[in-house]
Amino acid sequence: MKIAIYGYGNLGKGVELAVRQNPDTELFGVFTRRAPETVQTVLPDTKVYPAADIVSYKNDIDVLVICGGSATDLPAMTPALAADFNVIDSFDTHADIPKHFAAVDAAARQGGNIAVISVGWDPGMFSLNRLYANAILPDGKDYTFWGKGVSQGHSDAIRRIEGVADARQYTIPVQAALDSVRAGENPELSTREKHTRLCYVVAKDGADKARIEQEIKTMPKYFSDYDTTVNFISQEELDRDHKGIPHGGFVIRTGSTGVNGENKHVIEYSLKLDSNPEFTASVLVAYARAAYRLQQRGDTGCKTVFDIAPADLSVKSHEEIIASML
Amino acid sequence: MKIAIYGYGNLGKGVELAVRQNPDTELFGVFTRRAPETVQTVLPDTKVYPAADIVSYKNDIDVLVICGGSATDLPAMTPALAADFNVIDSFDTHADIPKHFAAVDAAARQGGNIAVISVGWDPGMFSLNRLYANAILPDGKDYTFWGKGVSQGHSDAIRRIEGVADARQYTIPVQAALDSVRAGENPELSTREKHTRLCYVVAKDGADKARIEQEIKTMPKYFSDYDTTVNFISQEELDRDHKGIPHGGFVIRTGSTGVNGENKHVIEYSLKLDSNPEFTASVLVAYARAAYRLQQRGDTGCKTVFDIAPADLSVKSHEEIIASML
Repeated sequence: MKIAIYGYGNLGKGVELAVRQNPDTELFGVFTRRAPETVQTVLPDTKVYPAADIVSYKNDIDVLVICGGSATDLPAMTPALAADFNVIDSFDTHADIPKHFAAVDAAARQGGNIAVISVGWDPGMFSLNRLYANAILPDGKDYTFWGKGVSQGHSDAIRRIEGVADARQYTIPVQAALDSVRAGENPELSTREKHTRLCYVVAKDGADKARIEQEIKTMPKYFSDYDTTVNFISQEELDRDHKGIPHGGFVIRTGSTGVNGENKHVIEYSLKLDSNPEFTASVLVAYARAAYRLQQRGDTGCKTVFDIAPADLSVKSHEEIIASML
Repeated sequence: MKIAIYGYGNLGKGVELAVRQNPDTELFGVFTRRAPETVQTVLPDTKVYPAADIVSYKNDIDVLVICGGSATDLPAMTPALAADFNVIDSFDTHADIPKHFAAVDAAARQGGNIAVISVGWDPGMFSLNRLYANAILPDGKDYTFWGKGVSQGHSDAIRRIEGVADARQYTIPVQAALDSVRAGENPELSTREKHTRLCYVVAKDGADKARIEQEIKTMPKYFSDYDTTVNFISQEELDRDHKGIPHGGFVIRTGSTGVNGENKHVIEYSLKLDSNPEFTASVLVAYARAAYRLQQRGDTGCKTVFDIAPADLSVKSHEEIIASML
């Protein structure tokens, strides 16, 4: 199965590495809107092509993994590319997923291709766990906690403040809230009670740190509803201690069964990831396998993680998975 | 969707209750090999029929949930009933699953029905999590821990010892082992290092407790490979403190990505269940929904949890799940 990468940032680099870990996948190359000769790939043998030429490689690529941003790239890219390729994306603007699904579905059907959208861990593995747990425990309550991990959006928001040279923001779940949920206490949790925000900020020379801290803590949507801690550090410290992109989180459903709901159950799924983009990329490649198999069987259109049978993700045969994993 | 229960023990009772929690399912009744008038159902309105008459109700039942034992009941019952009904079972003899699958598949295809075997939490939800995690992290290591929970098989084994009036055995995961796995240390764990066994035993009057304890602790397969604690208590204490059937456990996969495997990831799924049979029953009913839908779409044959797309488990429409859970 030949996989190509469209868009080459952190996620694209993760896909480049993930393809290597799977015995049945091979990397065709990377497509970029930059000048190909200026792109330095992680692996020396990776070929780089101009994005504009992609359609001419239509017959050489089995699945295209689109590694663009959800804000502006994917809403245009995924429908356009689904007309010519089996595609996977990690579209993560939850509220716009139905609209994106419809646009991609129409294009994929017309092209006779499979598109899988919103693949990764949230949306993705977390969504799957919400669905499974809801189907099993109809009478219950859902909780999702994120972190400890780096939020790129929040880090960017801090960097846009005047006087800030660099920043890294961690989202941290509140342990007491997690404990209460796990104990089956079904708490009603405010935004503030679920997560705290921890910021490491490099101030420019002579910048007013008190004002920067105040601007961060009062920033609507991003920080004002949270207990936020701001630590000023040097660029050296930031580069040394905070260059990773860890993330993770918890999906918990608590529910009850019995004659009078007397038996309580807790279903918990959690991820602890050293590299958010590399893990997301690993999920994308597993779903690329499924997309290819679905198209081989004559299916077309847009799919989500909800629509794909788990067996189609595995490199192993049906006999092997039944014998070794069931 | 009309669901019937075949076999009425703890699991059958759980299904009786679970059907009530789902708005799209209705209980047709219970089929039993006992004299129907001797069977006391949990809910007063539940109808009880003789198992021998089941085929005459073929057109009244959409899915039959077979609640028999894996040792002798299910290997015969599931293939026999799959010829006439869509069926679900919880066959859990891992080593015999391929053979069971083949027998059930042939019968279900011949009857134009869907059969879903080995549904529950292990096999079942734990299997799913093993498969997903393996597909995502090809370079990694799997761990499954069970408990804290009651093992019916081990409790039965103790009851068969001379001088034992009653017993309850708990399987308990070793916290240090869990911690080591979660820390990504990839430990090689012996049987003894993963679980301990805790036994509450009611001795008959005048029985030799030292001999009973010795027989338990040295029983091959069941106890000799474990650190086992035996507590003698009264029947009153057993009935008061140990009448529940809790269980649960943990499926963890640790793996690495990156240029040199430098980024570690931990995927963990866990269950904490007050009632093992009621939770298992809840999973069975969700898969009954999927079986019915698959057959409505013209599919036939034997399936496992690996073969069923998550969306088919949900009572909600595709539009709803995409909008609310993805």
